[in-house]
Amino acid sequence: MTEIENADIFAGSDECRSGTDLPFLQTATFSDPLALELGGALSSVTVGYETYGELNAARDNAVLIAHALTGDSHVAKHNDEDEPGWWDCFVGPGKAVDTNRYFVICPNCLGGCRGTTGPGSTNPATGEPYGSAFPDITFGDIVAVQKRLVDHLGIARLRAVIGGSMGGQQAQIWGTDYTDSTGGVVLVATSPRLTSQSLAFDIVGRNAIQSDPNFAAGAPATGLAIARMLGHITYLSSEAMNRKFESTRNAPRDVETDFEKLFSVGSYLAYKGQKFTERFDANSYCAITLAMDRFDMGATVEQLAERYAPSKTRWLVMSFTSDWLFPPTQSQQIVDALVHSQIPVSYCNIQSDCGHDAFLLPNNVERYGGMTAGFLANFDTNPTATDGEETHDHTSIFHPQRRLDYERILDQIGDAQSVLDLGCGTGGLLCRLEGTSDIRLCGVERDEASVQECIRRGVDVVQGDLNEPLDRFGDGEFDCVVLSRTLQAVFDVRGLLSEMLRIGRRCVVSVPNFGYHKLQEQFRQTGRMPEAALLHHKWYDTPNIRVLTLSDFEAFCTEHAITIDKRVLLDSEQGSEVDRDELADMAIFVLHREA
Amino acid sequence: MTEIENADIFAGSDECRSGTDLPFLQTATFSDPLALELGGALSSVTVGYETYGELNAARDNAVLIAHALTGDSHVAKHNDEDEPGWWDCFVGPGKAVDTNRYFVICPNCLGGCRGTTGPGSTNPATGEPYGSAFPDITFGDIVAVQKRLVDHLGIARLRAVIGGSMGGQQAQIWGTDYTDSTGGVVLVATSPRLTSQSLAFDIVGRNAIQSDPNFAAGAPATGLAIARMLGHITYLSSEAMNRKFESTRNAPRDVETDFEKLFSVGSYLAYKGQKFTERFDANSYCAITLAMDRFDMGATVEQLAERYAPSKTRWLVMSFTSDWLFPPTQSQQIVDALVHSQIPVSYCNIQSDCGHDAFLLPNNVERYGGMTAGFLANFDTNPTATDGEETHDHTSIFHPQRRLDYERILDQIGDAQSVLDLGCGTGGLLCRLEGTSDIRLCGVERDEASVQECIRRGVDVVQGDLNEPLDRFGDGEFDCVVLSRTLQAVFDVRGLLSEMLRIGRRCVVSVPNFGYHKLQEQFRQTGRMPEAALLHHKWYDTPNIRVLTLSDFEAFCTEHAITIDKRVLLDSEQGSEVDRDELADMAIFVLHREA
Repeated sequence: MTEIENADIFAGSDECRSGTDLPFLQTATFSDPLALELGGALSSVTVGYETYGELNAARDNAVLIAHALTGDSHVAKHNDEDEPGWWDCFVGPGKAVDTNRYFVICPNCLGGCRGTTGPGSTNPATGEPYGSAFPDITFGDIVAVQKRLVDHLGIARLRAVIGGSMGGQQAQIWGTDYTDSTGGVVLVATSPRLTSQSLAFDIVGRNAIQSDPNFAAGAPATGLAIARMLGHITYLSSEAMNRKFESTRNAPRDVETDFEKLFSVGSYLAYKGQKFTERFDANSYCAITLAMDRFDMGATVEQLAERYAPSKTRWLVMSFTSDWLFPPTQSQQIVDALVHSQIPVSYCNIQSDCGHDAFLLPNNVERYGGMTAGFLANFDTNPTATDGEETHDHTSIFHPQRRLDYERILDQIGDAQSVLDLGCGTGGLLCRLEGTSDIRLCGVERDEASVQECIRRGVDVVQGDLNEPLDRFGDGEFDCVVLSRTLQAVFDVRGLLSEMLRIGRRCVVSVPNFGYHKLQEQFRQTGRMPEAALLHHKWYDTPNIRVLTLSDFEAFCTEHAITIDKRVLLDSEQGSEVDRDELADMAIFVLHREA
Repeated sequence: MTEIENADIFAGSDECRSGTDLPFLQTATFSDPLALELGGALSSVTVGYETYGELNAARDNAVLIAHALTGDSHVAKHNDEDEPGWWDCFVGPGKAVDTNRYFVICPNCLGGCRGTTGPGSTNPATGEPYGSAFPDITFGDIVAVQKRLVDHLGIARLRAVIGGSMGGQQAQIWGTDYTDSTGGVVLVATSPRLTSQSLAFDIVGRNAIQSDPNFAAGAPATGLAIARMLGHITYLSSEAMNRKFESTRNAPRDVETDFEKLFSVGSYLAYKGQKFTERFDANSYCAITLAMDRFDMGATVEQLAERYAPSKTRWLVMSFTSDWLFPPTQSQQIVDALVHSQIPVSYCNIQSDCGHDAFLLPNNVERYGGMTAGFLANFDTNPTATDGEETHDHTSIFHPQRRLDYERILDQIGDAQSVLDLGCGTGGLLCRLEGTSDIRLCGVERDEASVQECIRRGVDVVQGDLNEPLDRFGDGEFDCVVLSRTLQAVFDVRGLLSEMLRIGRRCVVSVPNFGYHKLQEQFRQTGRMPEAALLHHKWYDTPNIRVLTLSDFEAFCTEHAITIDKRVLLDSEQGSEVDRDELADMAIFVLHREA
């Protein structure tokens, strides 16, 4: 945060910054024709790319990074003297994508202007550069070229493909159409297709370029600058723009420009717009944005689920709360569809006020980087086992550190082949299950830090609020759904139980008992609400907002046609089962509802 | 909603639609020079305007409406055969701004192209139209011309000035610089100055216009169309755009255009952009947007409070939750500043997913129209008296319809000259106070429907969430702050009480008592949480999420250095005071904290 606040207003916020030279660029040329998805072919293709780290002997430590719209192969610096890369905070020795451990490949995309075949390349039919005659390409074509490069490097299977923004759209193609060739995909700030709003911005940008009178001659600098100005607005949140420009609103920099510079934000846009024309080709801009606009995995969750269905890859999806160019709801669509197709996925919506640019900023990298590192390390092994007990809000009434209920819940889960843990915290219960057998496990948790801890440990968790419908899970999709010590913290109890019983063929719920005799004695003696009843909080600050007895819970079940198949009354202080309600500080209920 | 969903995608969403002819246009010409705020003068000014309804004999029923960027004087149709006006849903016989009751004046703004002096007018120095040589104008100049018109019509004091978007910015100038000339101002979807983001969009639009090679010749149609396309994106929420275009995403209309039309949203933008150039002048667009960009009431609440301080006008401020061009936070800044300067104001943030355009759409008019009508009818009289008792959530434990606590709270308020009611519901308590004396009253309420009911009744209320800091109220600003039957529904109890004690010199809190003997008996007999304890809800659906006894509350006060000056124990069933905690179903505490 400080970083941004103190920064020169002209610094940063390039979607992908990059220098003008690429001294570490390698190239590979493939002389067999590339048939294009929209028709036609390129007779040969050259790929410019950079690599970092070493490919190991097993050739199984390669990670491919797909760059965003105006990025390039220079994802990170190669040494201390090198120019900064656009994702230096994330990729490098000891970083989240650790180049001491992984062999990182970053290709320039087809259609671009940084060493891979594009509008600036020579059209063999004319001997001149293609210019605006470069054929229409798709992200499928772009990924096909990346695949050729990976084959060329002798890598049968990537550990993962990582992409932010448009790079994340390409990574989705890897995870579906080339699912045998990558173990995981990491999607950052991306979408299954652009929103109408984001599409509209691209269109206005291309209209500015293509209606520039110099477009035909190949140098529509004014139009390209205007398209870039527009892009810059969309990369930042409104809050971030205010932070950057409000204090100097009426004090523009004296930029050399023909554009308006009455306000500081105007001088910034003029500067960034003009600077962009020095390093980017207008035809590449049109070719790539058009490919992005045409990228379309599907409009509905059903369509998307069908599209992703072939995937055997493990997915990590991350969005940023203030990103309005690739809004979190779109990442959630991807997650919904993957869950629908029973493909393993983790999801975190990272709190940030920086907008789409958040994915490139060092102040967010601790979070998305930590999850990525954990995902890369754990996705083909069992989760990191829990060391001892949880330190977690949902703890036993008299012994906050003991999770007696876990053991009893495990008994009730039995031989279920799929388990959903609602309010899974940092994944304690799921870790225990993961160790025992090869079953489908998924957690749902609202708290961002807990979600991140799950993902770092290798537990699949989807961030979500239990007060909202759990639409992403189908009817009867899980053998067993668990709600352990969470019910009392939920506002919409009825909605949650209804969803739970819809999703689970068997449901296991642990509930604290306000009717426990010691609580009642305390209440009578003191005339005050016992803190233990509120799970060791005060009446005024407990997250546990529902106060109930076991009778209350059972009456609820009766009223709502829920069958109680079993109940286990526990005295967690004694660590034993008991046989009367008032002797139990908690109970575990096994429930179902007839469809 | 249906309206929008079913509409032709090409319909609507003009920020202010208007026809090409204005057959009801009247004009007035003022031949004394108008000195401009940024220097220079116009030697004479002509105003084009339309009027609706009749000015009454007392000349006190006039309402001025200031139009938005691309609107004009044709705010409503004059008869059934007339062309639609841009705010027909809001202005007309029997509508919110009832032309059977009010004399409505809608002038075209200075600098525009619809009959009021602007770039298309003849420059007396050259005998040619001003074009881009039209002098720089401000909203102060625009309002000065409106004031001349109002004087010309023989109106000493308007009942109110109403404006949406940029019109609301002009209305702010009326409410401060011409406060003696208007009784009220109604602000819809506006701001004290543009956000950096909104400013940036205007700048990119002007850059497109001014870099168009045809700009110098006076007809930069391409640039103006691009600016307009951009505007259209900003008028709609992303959700509204998806609703409009997603189902036909790849089926564009076959519009006659040189712009791109690959996607349905693209054909829409091309059509709207081109159509705009037929009715709007590029120099007017630049002149007015630049005036809007320069409009600046202040950057901070302190600056704004100072700017609004002279106001003797009553204010109604309304925003829309999905408006990102004039976001609700900016309306809240205006409200904060007015409250800071102790100027009467009501505020409602209307739930809508239509974006900035929401203020022009019939599907929202019931809400903002109802509040406007109530405001216009009541702002110079006492609030509509409450008829009988409240039907409200915060009701007596055993007699939901009785509000015994109101009477006892009124006793405790005593002779306070300023009262803030936190969680005021539909304003029952405030109405009773309003009837008795001339004191400063303000309510805070989260529920939108309750806020609207308050405003319709003429009670000043500011929509807000008691779980968040009440920054807009200063330390010790109110003689008395009331929190009646609300504490138990608040999550952040500590934060709220702390804010309350900061703002009020005396605080009156009514609290339900879970220790009440009948509740305890019920609990012992049934083993279940008594519904009465949860104010007639079940444990699983009550909004009352804090369960406490009077001892709990008193202990809280002790722990937090809060002095209890008085406590009144009530048996609301008997309608009497009692002398022991367990006999009271509720209590009223009078509190203060030493500064």
